Amino acid sequence: MTGTVYLVGAGPGAPDLLTLRAARLLESADIVFHDALVNPEILALAGKAKMVAVGKRCGKHSTAQAFINKQLIDSARKHDVIVRLKGGDPMLFGRAQEEIDALVGSGVDVEVVPGITAALAASASLKVSLTRRGIARNVAFVTPRIGKAEKAGNWLDTAASADTVVIYMGAGEAAAIANALILQGRPASTPAAMIESASLSDEQWHFGTLAGLAELAGLVGTGPAIIVLGEVLRDRARAGSQLSEWVRKAG
Amino acid sequence: MTGTVYLVGAGPGAPDLLTLRAARLLESADIVFHDALVNPEILALAGKAKMVAVGKRCGKHSTAQAFINKQLIDSARKHDVIVRLKGGDPMLFGRAQEEIDALVGSGVDVEVVPGITAALAASASLKVSLTRRGIARNVAFVTPRIGKAEKAGNWLDTAASADTVVIYMGAGEAAAIANALILQGRPASTPAAMIESASLSDEQWHFGTLAGLAELAGLVGTGPAIIVLGEVLRDRARAGSQLSEWVRKAG
Repeated sequence: MTGTVYLVGAGPGAPDLLTLRAARLLESADIVFHDALVNPEILALAGKAKMVAVGKRCGKHSTAQAFINKQLIDSARKHDVIVRLKGGDPMLFGRAQEEIDALVGSGVDVEVVPGITAALAASASLKVSLTRRGIARNVAFVTPRIGKAEKAGNWLDTAASADTVVIYMGAGEAAAIANALILQGRPASTPAAMIESASLSDEQWHFGTLAGLAELAGLVGTGPAIIVLGEVLRDRARAGSQLSEWVRKAG
Repeated sequence: MTGTVYLVGAGPGAPDLLTLRAARLLESADIVFHDALVNPEILALAGKAKMVAVGKRCGKHSTAQAFINKQLIDSARKHDVIVRLKGGDPMLFGRAQEEIDALVGSGVDVEVVPGITAALAASASLKVSLTRRGIARNVAFVTPRIGKAEKAGNWLDTAASADTVVIYMGAGEAAAIANALILQGRPASTPAAMIESASLSDEQWHFGTLAGLAELAGLVGTGPAIIVLGEVLRDRARAGSQLSEWVRKAG
């Protein structure tokens, strides 16, 4: 057992938003297990590695987690540098802990290399800081839980109280999210943005309000999308969007 | 007016946790305005640039924001590639918006390059994912507001309800933070970690509970420190810490 498994964040998509450490590890990797959504230009950095696609796409269960774990452990018996490449940051909504625990439990060395998460890439693209003096002193990253028992999450309390909220994996349930948040006390006029394919050449964003979140969701295509909510967006939405009139009326 | 100002995240400290884009911009920069805390090894990448330290250290007001804004605008009249280098990610607790708005207001082109924020570097070092199936579906990044009117922030509501909480710039007020959160309903036995100088060679971490946060804060030195709270830490604290007995008793 000589190999080390590196759980590496691939970042939001743009190849040059990879960290230097991630790029070097890809270049020296013997084998790379990657999510389905990772940009082919990033995969191309792994010049000498065997490539194995194992990722799960939103809502589509491509490879069972237990099987991924087993592949990683087996791989550490045969190779020195094993890279497990995940979109964004591995430690945010990446199910990394299941892989780390399985590997550590089998005596495999594990290292984690952080990546740029979609929220920060979107914030950079929009040129809207997620925090702002006098307006937002905190930000929450949430995954919604619509139509399910609330036992495993208080996402609604968190998303209702945080100054700025970034919702991952929520574009498909935008109407239900908006309803739930408005019922929970978040103003219907809260500025909202929907960002698709943050950092990539086909990036798109749309501004509106929480009340109109479903309409915004209707404008996005098939790329990964996140939702940003909060007063930090108000000036930007006003200045930059085809929906500015709507924001102004709602506000 | 030909220059572009790039607000660039320097990441948590380790030079190889810089993005490829940030490294290339530093290499081509004519002038770099950097925070006081940025690692000298990262500054060394800016081989041909004039270096200007403008940062503010926690609690120490080194250069007034208005003067930084003016320097950046003046610089865009003289140089092509101006880098404003900020620790971590520029859009999280970095006062980036004030600089962006001043630059855009003066007709200067601005681009933002995201960086690895301390929370994600700490999560990678601890090998504890900030989210975890069945345990944590959301995470909040907060700055506390102790002993001040609550008008500009609901950090306490957010920090009490989020599954995982990362507190930036809070180590100096750990006792007050713990008291406030426990009063707000967060269990005193909530696992807690204090991480200093995440990603650097002198990185340190300490595990305990929310009730013992002040003791943890007493163990950190002079480096930048963040606090992580939440059930995601429980196994790790139990397995890895000199304080494991304490966590077990409290839990």
